[in-house]
Amino acid sequence: MTTHAFQTVALIGKPDDPAATATVARLATLLAHRGVTVRLETRTAAALGPTRPEAGTDLAALGAVADLALVVGGDGTLIGVARTLCAHKVPLMGINLGSLGFLTETHPAHLEGSIAALLAGNYRREQRMMLQVRVERAGQIPQEACAFNDAVVHRGPSARMVTLATYVDARFVLAQAADGLIVASPTGSTAYALSAGGPIVHPRLPAFALVPICPHTLTNRPIVLPATSRIEVVLTQAPGAAQLTLDGQVPFALAEGDRVHVERAPHDVDLLCDPQWDYFAVLREKLRWGERP
Amino acid sequence: MTTHAFQTVALIGKPDDPAATATVARLATLLAHRGVTVRLETRTAAALGPTRPEAGTDLAALGAVADLALVVGGDGTLIGVARTLCAHKVPLMGINLGSLGFLTETHPAHLEGSIAALLAGNYRREQRMMLQVRVERAGQIPQEACAFNDAVVHRGPSARMVTLATYVDARFVLAQAADGLIVASPTGSTAYALSAGGPIVHPRLPAFALVPICPHTLTNRPIVLPATSRIEVVLTQAPGAAQLTLDGQVPFALAEGDRVHVERAPHDVDLLCDPQWDYFAVLREKLRWGERP
Amino acid sequence: MTTHAFQTVALIGKPDDPAATATVARLATLLAHRGVTVRLETRTAAALGPTRPEAGTDLAALGAVADLALVVGGDGTLIGVARTLCAHKVPLMGINLGSLGFLTETHPAHLEGSIAALLAGNYRREQRMMLQVRVERAGQIPQEACAFNDAVVHRGPSARMVTLATYVDARFVLAQAADGLIVASPTGSTAYALSAGGPIVHPRLPAFALVPICPHTLTNRPIVLPATSRIEVVLTQAPGAAQLTLDGQVPFALAEGDRVHVERAPHDVDLLCDPQWDYFAVLREKLRWGERP
Amino acid sequence: MTTHAFQTVALIGKPDDPAATATVARLATLLAHRGVTVRLETRTAAALGPTRPEAGTDLAALGAVADLALVVGGDGTLIGVARTLCAHKVPLMGINLGSLGFLTETHPAHLEGSIAALLAGNYRREQRMMLQVRVERAGQIPQEACAFNDAVVHRGPSARMVTLATYVDARFVLAQAADGLIVASPTGSTAYALSAGGPIVHPRLPAFALVPICPHTLTNRPIVLPATSRIEVVLTQAPGAAQLTLDGQVPFALAEGDRVHVERAPHDVDLLCDPQWDYFAVLREKLRWGERP
Repeated sequence: MTTHAFQTVALIGKPDDPAATATVARLATLLAHRGVTVRLETRTAAALGPTRPEAGTDLAALGAVADLALVVGGDGTLIGVARTLCAHKVPLMGINLGSLGFLTETHPAHLEGSIAALLAGNYRREQRMMLQVRVERAGQIPQEACAFNDAVVHRGPSARMVTLATYVDARFVLAQAADGLIVASPTGSTAYALSAGGPIVHPRLPAFALVPICPHTLTNRPIVLPATSRIEVVLTQAPGAAQLTLDGQVPFALAEGDRVHVERAPHDVDLLCDPQWDYFAVLREKLRWGERP
Repeated sequence: MTTHAFQTVALIGKPDDPAATATVARLATLLAHRGVTVRLETRTAAALGPTRPEAGTDLAALGAVADLALVVGGDGTLIGVARTLCAHKVPLMGINLGSLGFLTETHPAHLEGSIAALLAGNYRREQRMMLQVRVERAGQIPQEACAFNDAVVHRGPSARMVTLATYVDARFVLAQAADGLIVASPTGSTAYALSAGGPIVHPRLPAFALVPICPHTLTNRPIVLPATSRIEVVLTQAPGAAQLTLDGQVPFALAEGDRVHVERAPHDVDLLCDPQWDYFAVLREKLRWGERP
Repeated sequence: MTTHAFQTVALIGKPDDPAATATVARLATLLAHRGVTVRLETRTAAALGPTRPEAGTDLAALGAVADLALVVGGDGTLIGVARTLCAHKVPLMGINLGSLGFLTETHPAHLEGSIAALLAGNYRREQRMMLQVRVERAGQIPQEACAFNDAVVHRGPSARMVTLATYVDARFVLAQAADGLIVASPTGSTAYALSAGGPIVHPRLPAFALVPICPHTLTNRPIVLPATSRIEVVLTQAPGAAQLTLDGQVPFALAEGDRVHVERAPHDVDLLCDPQWDYFAVLREKLRWGERP
Repeated sequence: MTTHAFQTVALIGKPDDPAATATVARLATLLAHRGVTVRLETRTAAALGPTRPEAGTDLAALGAVADLALVVGGDGTLIGVARTLCAHKVPLMGINLGSLGFLTETHPAHLEGSIAALLAGNYRREQRMMLQVRVERAGQIPQEACAFNDAVVHRGPSARMVTLATYVDARFVLAQAADGLIVASPTGSTAYALSAGGPIVHPRLPAFALVPICPHTLTNRPIVLPATSRIEVVLTQAPGAAQLTLDGQVPFALAEGDRVHVERAPHDVDLLCDPQWDYFAVLREKLRWGERP
């Protein structure tokens, strides 16, 4: 539990979601009443319309001015914001009025209480590592971005496998023919990597999980690597239009021979949450993990 | 071991493969010397060029006239031929000079001996069931075709999962959010379905394997069903451009709401092979199955 | 739905279970009122005590006289009865007042209605194949028995792996170093074999699933074989006290060199159930299979 | 690469292995010629017999006097030595003349060169974390020991599952009905945990892998936890004689209600190896990991 005075709070709502917009409006009022400067993200401001006359600010620009970002929506919305703000050290808090997320909490009615607790410093800071992803092609870097959950190299629309060679710290690890390969952060280990058969990696462990997608041979198994590893995935064969996708949200077309570099991003993201938040309880609830009582 | 007099033999070579073309030429000569009528597939005839002046015949048309088809190439080539000929009862034999396939045999040098054995009736007939696949959309059937290995419903280029509801004999089985679902024949169980975590299904077992691809929940497991089952996979949600792919070779664009019906095809395919051919030995060799000696 | 006049009904209750005993007493009265001859299994008769003065009959002997066996208890009780009666063609019906089983149905209050329906021929007959298991040791057969779910060769209390060589129809399949190997019937595919990573096999498919338990190499995968297969598992190395266990109920100590033969038993078991009984609904409920609604 | 003057070297050979004994004799001579004091472990000294007249020293006592232990044998022998010496900070080097181990190296003929390199400081130091394991029963600690690979709670000879409740840092994680649960170190992740379906965990990652063995429900998945975690596995139900096994070598009989505590041991073990030693190359070779070239 840390005390922290939040002066300027950015508000971001899930696009095209009237319930999120209504919650943003409520939050804006609540925060203003408590003397906090509120800054709305551009699309969020537009969605609020006449009720909030000030212009919105571009999400990336908010990173420079806000000392907290409240994100109203599901995990996907939060992940997108985290990725965009990854160069800044703005803590995030997810507010999910609909359902329990891995990263976002449900406050059905007591939004006021939560905000009061937050401003009183009554919260926990969960540090989550992010990925720094770079595509190298013929000496150029045509793509460089952050990812919160995962960087996925995938065969794309082609029904034919790609062949990948993976290196860690410049050492050859293995070659694989597969539908693709997931490089996941601990947070991402319960997202797509879990679907592909990967292990759950606790978010406090500084690690990457490398999880093959539908590998061609039986002799494959996910591997968990230290977060200090410099990972390089070389697209050695790609019969079709392969792609790199970050967090399932940002696609990038790959070409045969491309080298995808993944490292830990320079900054972690701070997720603020209720002091009672319990990672294992979320796993049990979201994954129906373990036995029935 | 069955004796059978082959009068008319169709020859099909892997397209754009000079080694396959050379083997086809050798086979044509061998067979002609033994009094067998040889019919070349169109592209195969074109590849042979001036050395074989007769015109080729369309593959589908060969089904009506040939009483054996010799396919020179790998498993992929054989599978394509089997699919095209599935309405006919033409037995197939795969000849793979390069490497061991699941379905095709390697005859590095003794092609003559193999052909002699074949014509003498010294072969085994391996029956393989095929799939009959139909897409139903708004009361129409926009696609209907056979598949040898599998019918795969897949999210396609989209990074977002599809949601599928599966029925067997008109009974609801389960709903799944996943990258896709594979309906595999026993032969197909060692192809893509194996990559997705499915079991090996012996080719003499009349069965389908239903294998989810990267399912969203932990509570998923492949199921093996009797080949008498009428399977229906309904694409209940498809955020992107989902597709149906047959044998990894024939794509078809699906729309939300499409119903993909899979049943056993009316005819099995007869694969002719050496009497010594051993399914388990091929598994061990191809999959590096089990322990090292 | 088949009509069948049941003249003599065997009643078997789960041992040491007062609720089962009470249900047996109720069933005995119900059946007697309807003119059916009731025969109690020995321990079941003893549990009923003074209320049912007639002596019980040994379970194996009941097989010769009863034309139906009603088994009150969970799946485990039913499986034990099925195994003991496997030489006879007595249909079974499981009555499980506590909770849903894979094989037994829940009749919380309307036992009368169920019995009336049963005697009126308003039931479905589900045929389930059983396993015939034989241990061969130095030319002798020290153990021969049926199994309903599975025959499991396991390392037993030793922490060291066993090495097994598997043959099908006298052909070598593979060698494995593992904790053990499960040979499961379709019914058994949702029991221990599922825990070990095996596929679900539909009970109408005449098949065996061979599922390794904690195999030493990555190159292992369950295989599903036709029920006509003669399976032989040779215990090539057993550093500790390995054992064969049938249905998790009947242990038998194995010695290095023992050959465990598994074939389909000569008779199937007929399970009688409600005409509305739905295999897939049971899977969804018992395995929490698929998505949440 | 670190320079270090080894004054006193302990020699331990695989028991009852004449080849190991012969190599120990060679090593003793080599080291003595180079002025190093050699101390033989008791059984190793006995095996050498009249050729080495000095009495051996108990392995645990060697930990106090040796500044290096050379272990001649396979991974199992090295693991046993590491466990016994875990209270001491004696680095270990494995010498495996037979075959490649995960932890031991093969020196078919150039033992001299390797020893020269070692004494010249030409080696790499691989730190491996160990487990500290304690059984708590009715307020007592009937068992406390180290483990190098894993602590396994297992149903033992019983064919019936145990039920386990797992806690991390006193928080409830999940309840499982299973054959057992493996708590593995990164080194142990490629041992039994891999057989049970666990991920590979890089040895430089300070982590535990919790891998269930044949879990009863589908909703189970291995989890990787920070090495700072205090893990507690409570044996909530054990129908038979359950046991705890350390490294597959040290069994301990558990009783229902026992609490097995696992933490990182206070000291890591230093494995000395060739500077060219490559973890990924060993994985590829030992696990036949990835594609064939």
